[in-house]
Amino acid sequence: MSKKAVILLSGGLDSATVLSIAKAEGYECYAMNINYQQRHAAELKAAKKIADTFGVAEYKLVNIDLGWLETSSLTNRSLKIPDSHAPGIPSTYVPARNTLMLSLALAWAENLLAKDIFIGVNSIDYSGYPDCRPEYIESFEKMANLATKMGIEGTDIKIHTPLINLTKAEIIKIGNEKNLDYSMTISCYQASDDGLACGKCDSCRLRKEGFLAANIQDPTHYL
Amino acid sequence: MSKKAVILLSGGLDSATVLSIAKAEGYECYAMNINYQQRHAAELKAAKKIADTFGVAEYKLVNIDLGWLETSSLTNRSLKIPDSHAPGIPSTYVPARNTLMLSLALAWAENLLAKDIFIGVNSIDYSGYPDCRPEYIESFEKMANLATKMGIEGTDIKIHTPLINLTKAEIIKIGNEKNLDYSMTISCYQASDDGLACGKCDSCRLRKEGFLAANIQDPTHYL
Repeated sequence: MSKKAVILLSGGLDSATVLSIAKAEGYECYAMNINYQQRHAAELKAAKKIADTFGVAEYKLVNIDLGWLETSSLTNRSLKIPDSHAPGIPSTYVPARNTLMLSLALAWAENLLAKDIFIGVNSIDYSGYPDCRPEYIESFEKMANLATKMGIEGTDIKIHTPLINLTKAEIIKIGNEKNLDYSMTISCYQASDDGLACGKCDSCRLRKEGFLAANIQDPTHYL
Repeated sequence: MSKKAVILLSGGLDSATVLSIAKAEGYECYAMNINYQQRHAAELKAAKKIADTFGVAEYKLVNIDLGWLETSSLTNRSLKIPDSHAPGIPSTYVPARNTLMLSLALAWAENLLAKDIFIGVNSIDYSGYPDCRPEYIESFEKMANLATKMGIEGTDIKIHTPLINLTKAEIIKIGNEKNLDYSMTISCYQASDDGLACGKCDSCRLRKEGFLAANIQDPTHYL
């Protein structure tokens, strides 16, 4: 019998690895991509291509306009994406982003009667976002079980975070073993429409260092 | 000094009462209305009119397409809205709805540096939805404080639910004392475009009985 799972898929390296893990674990995968106006055409195309490559049961793109979140450089295009990693939480932080994404995944999961949700958060090689930490995920999971009909009727809803305690190099090694073609994925915060990465932002830096440390050739197309 | 608060405003009786309470408590109110494709033109107009009447600092309408939630009779128009209150959670239940709405309110609150969020949930005269109960709200609040930069930096984010333990009659009495004109509000799950209520759905029943029990004239326009 197939087990259904909802996978949050952004088009980036981490969530593509998560999809490869869920597939290997035998889940029937429902991939959800959330376009909150941060997107480049290239990133949306990447998510769709990854979903197709893995033969997901369904791919769902949800559009939600968060362009009014003026404090984040991912949603406010007049703010510059910071070049390198400075101490503290950078301006790329989007308030309540993972809470919103997990809420949408939860809604779909309950609609599908799927009790498993996968998200590619990581609290090792990351930008310091509070909603990537294990204590946040545990708290969301508790809340989800109180929020839903499925949860209060006894189904144990589980938020899977297979990458949360891994380094970027370890993540890349896992995907590589599963023959995930990372050239499909886009991590850059400001990729060009044809999918070229800037090579300078925090996300590019973490990715680049990850391939180096994993001793795997970096297939990223840089500007 | 003004205190900012985000108020979830649907155009219904409960959330309008919540706005009147937050105003009376001295908050500078930011009203958020979420259109998830359940809406009648009349309900959107009602929310805007209520916001204008109370002179909110800002009114924000967020559109999010949940038309793919096929198990709910609020988002799937081919399902019939049930007429009366049967035991159990009715088909009007929308998976993860309050979690999604509170997440959007949380994003706006953090963007505004507002630590207070108001929502008109009620666990007395209600339809049995799990995400209207106090234990759910407490759990969301804990999660919100772990999810956000504001929360982990020490701001105590608070989800206010002033109606949660009140009967519908008590709610109506509070709004009435604050001169809230309930003829502006629409509770019906299937109101006509010009704002006429069906008088038959669970939401109409709870509202009707509330005015009766409060001994206040029901200003609702019924079909």
